[in-house]
Amino acid sequence: MSSEPLYQQLVNEWTTLIQTGTVRPGERLPSVRKACAMHKVSPSTILLTYRTLEDRGLIEARPQSGFYVKSAANLPLPRMRRQSAAHHTGGEVVDQIEAVMGAQNQADFIDLSLASPRGSDFYPTTRFKHIMGRLLRQHPELTTDYPFPPGSERLRRQIAQRAVSWGCVLAADDLVISNGCTEALQLALRATCKPGDTVGVESPTYFALLPMLKDLGLSVIEIPTHPTSGLALDALELLLSEKRLNAIVAMPTVHNPLGSTMPPEAKQRLAQLVCDYQVPLIEDVPHADLFYGATTPDAVKAYDRDGWVLLCASYSKTLAPGFRIGWIAPGRFLSAVRRLKFASSLGQPALLEETLAEYLESGGYDHHLRLIRRHFINQMEKLRGAVAQHFPTGTRATLPSGGCLLWVELPSHADTMQLFHAALAERITVVPGAMYSAKGRYRNCLRLSCCYPWNEAYQRALARVGELAGQLADKD
Amino acid sequence: MSSEPLYQQLVNEWTTLIQTGTVRPGERLPSVRKACAMHKVSPSTILLTYRTLEDRGLIEARPQSGFYVKSAANLPLPRMRRQSAAHHTGGEVVDQIEAVMGAQNQADFIDLSLASPRGSDFYPTTRFKHIMGRLLRQHPELTTDYPFPPGSERLRRQIAQRAVSWGCVLAADDLVISNGCTEALQLALRATCKPGDTVGVESPTYFALLPMLKDLGLSVIEIPTHPTSGLALDALELLLSEKRLNAIVAMPTVHNPLGSTMPPEAKQRLAQLVCDYQVPLIEDVPHADLFYGATTPDAVKAYDRDGWVLLCASYSKTLAPGFRIGWIAPGRFLSAVRRLKFASSLGQPALLEETLAEYLESGGYDHHLRLIRRHFINQMEKLRGAVAQHFPTGTRATLPSGGCLLWVELPSHADTMQLFHAALAERITVVPGAMYSAKGRYRNCLRLSCCYPWNEAYQRALARVGELAGQLADKD
Repeated sequence: MSSEPLYQQLVNEWTTLIQTGTVRPGERLPSVRKACAMHKVSPSTILLTYRTLEDRGLIEARPQSGFYVKSAANLPLPRMRRQSAAHHTGGEVVDQIEAVMGAQNQADFIDLSLASPRGSDFYPTTRFKHIMGRLLRQHPELTTDYPFPPGSERLRRQIAQRAVSWGCVLAADDLVISNGCTEALQLALRATCKPGDTVGVESPTYFALLPMLKDLGLSVIEIPTHPTSGLALDALELLLSEKRLNAIVAMPTVHNPLGSTMPPEAKQRLAQLVCDYQVPLIEDVPHADLFYGATTPDAVKAYDRDGWVLLCASYSKTLAPGFRIGWIAPGRFLSAVRRLKFASSLGQPALLEETLAEYLESGGYDHHLRLIRRHFINQMEKLRGAVAQHFPTGTRATLPSGGCLLWVELPSHADTMQLFHAALAERITVVPGAMYSAKGRYRNCLRLSCCYPWNEAYQRALARVGELAGQLADKD
Repeated sequence: MSSEPLYQQLVNEWTTLIQTGTVRPGERLPSVRKACAMHKVSPSTILLTYRTLEDRGLIEARPQSGFYVKSAANLPLPRMRRQSAAHHTGGEVVDQIEAVMGAQNQADFIDLSLASPRGSDFYPTTRFKHIMGRLLRQHPELTTDYPFPPGSERLRRQIAQRAVSWGCVLAADDLVISNGCTEALQLALRATCKPGDTVGVESPTYFALLPMLKDLGLSVIEIPTHPTSGLALDALELLLSEKRLNAIVAMPTVHNPLGSTMPPEAKQRLAQLVCDYQVPLIEDVPHADLFYGATTPDAVKAYDRDGWVLLCASYSKTLAPGFRIGWIAPGRFLSAVRRLKFASSLGQPALLEETLAEYLESGGYDHHLRLIRRHFINQMEKLRGAVAQHFPTGTRATLPSGGCLLWVELPSHADTMQLFHAALAERITVVPGAMYSAKGRYRNCLRLSCCYPWNEAYQRALARVGELAGQLADKD
């Protein structure tokens, strides 16, 4: 059997899937290995299929990440230049966060900054209401008994079962429930570092991490991070070999703000590095369940043989932002994290833990995830299209592998702090790039969200931010 | 009008009230000033009344605290000797807490250690169920919106309104909601101290405070504390004048474990001291609403003119242990606490905050408090009676001003760590006194709780612990 007709057949199949929107822009195609198994063909046939689809402009290869359905929007990837701002003061990040959060609480603002959608349409609130009603009737002690760490065993069992899809073999007893992923990070940092220590973080990184590190008396080294493949491991290894890091915080799956996911080989190497150098890695993956691909990528924790990885996540981005339920699998730091949780804030509300556990047991979560992933893939393509249309020439943007966040890079002289204030004056909230760096980097970047319903107000706000960005870019 | 017939009339009235159990053992009589206003008589008449009641063995004066209905149990106050254990290691408190907590989670244990009752009979769970059901129907966004500090404004308004009865004039914006009083304490310590600082605490103190201080890199100085009048202010002033303290943590109203409440003049002096020396006071009062008297005593915060007092409390001991809702009024440290709460764990679950706010608005809390205070007064008298009956000669115990905790001092050579293990072997949990000191003090003390329903199993367990204590005392 010749491979020519076969690959042609596959090209036709995939073309149909893409053109009918069954697989959408931004979605990742199966890896070559997986596609071989799926179609029972050789790697060369799959490569030929993918190259042909690429030539036809339907898909694109992303370095170290795989093949993706191509976005219609013509936006090159950000260059991620690392110059710091000349007038950086250091205290800015916290002030800036307060300004952005203050704006978020205004009901009549168009919010292009939120990292999770508002409103009950998006979440299984009706299910929660029914479960909670029954639990309150049958188990009133859920509101009256003191909850102690590590938290609901039933919920921890569910989390451990789900972690299998991230390649992790965990038991309920390996986990501690926390007040969202934020407290999980805080506990992880306190369990692994002492004041004066230095923590390596991605650049850019989750903005709320920076004040947390400062509050804990920890210094920061920002490590270059690629818009599709994530943390630069050569740079990390250099720092490790120089013994300059006491811990690392990274978001290897669906990075915030870049949307990047490290390829499996990179994750494996990262796990090996932290094991070799015996430096704890805090793997922060609250957005991982929003990965666009059909299968969930393995966590770095999946390759962790000696317990140096502390895996932190939550259900705040996918199910119940209002429950404040996060969790941590702290590896060799388990007993330290349990003690710290006990001494810092005791347990979490058992009623909410049990509600979530019952929802997860009932098996509706995977279906729910498919719906919201599809929704975000769709919204993200529209958002990228709007940026390509309305933002000034020279604008670049990420191609997120999941989630609802887009990182936009304006021409290098534009200042998004000015853009933030100009947009705020028109009741529109965006997040300025400088919030994602302790060194005042990314002054020409901003983070946009596609959480907002795709209505006229949102589109008008996006167009207006693009226009304001154009005015800033023209000022040069 | 001569005062003789009048005081005699008052003596008869009070005798009836006491003998019919309308006012019960452990309850505090109105202060002389209040009684004067109540009965429209002179102070000398009231003093004569109280002295006569005292002579008849119906009430007793407690130093610096007032007159109380006398307990039937003949138990002298603890002597509070401060010798440290010879073999103290320092790591014991945390290990001991884990052992006690581990035992508490065993369903078939008789638990004489809990600081709040279990079971839904004690709390307004039915009301919570109804409120929560309606909130979930009408406001599903309570589970889906991200909650940010400082927490529900509606709840903060209720807390501020209730703080008036503690003599505090607070606005909703002066408050931050926390994950129980435990997180409030943690945030207060982080806002006021840096690692390496020294914190003054009462001796004995709330046991979970000790690992918290250790985790935060803070040193401890234990300050003598009186079983009825609380923190020894002369000792505190000595330390303040020597500039040895960076902050103070104290429980001036219904101390845990002593049950002491500082008299108003002492609280006023304490407020003045921390203001004069500009040293923050973390006023930790989760048990204050369980004060036995008819009127709520003022907080130290009531006398705080310059914001040096950080008032921390919760609803975990009175309404909903499972909600994990605490709060802090951080005074001049407000913005630091807000930022720390944001960076440490974000907000608390809004559904639970709003449920509690609606319950408090509806006005049922005062009635509920009256019921549980009366319950504890009753139970405490029975507990003290059982200790007097079953524990060895030479046993001493506190006369709590509120709450459900009794501090028992055995003859000085008895070791309550041994008692803890001996009781545990018979499935009974008590808290050994050494847990309340970083220096291994109070090895001959233990804390008992009257939370448990007053049934045969509880009485048998108490008698058995007394018997075991007697065996230890005899070993000498």
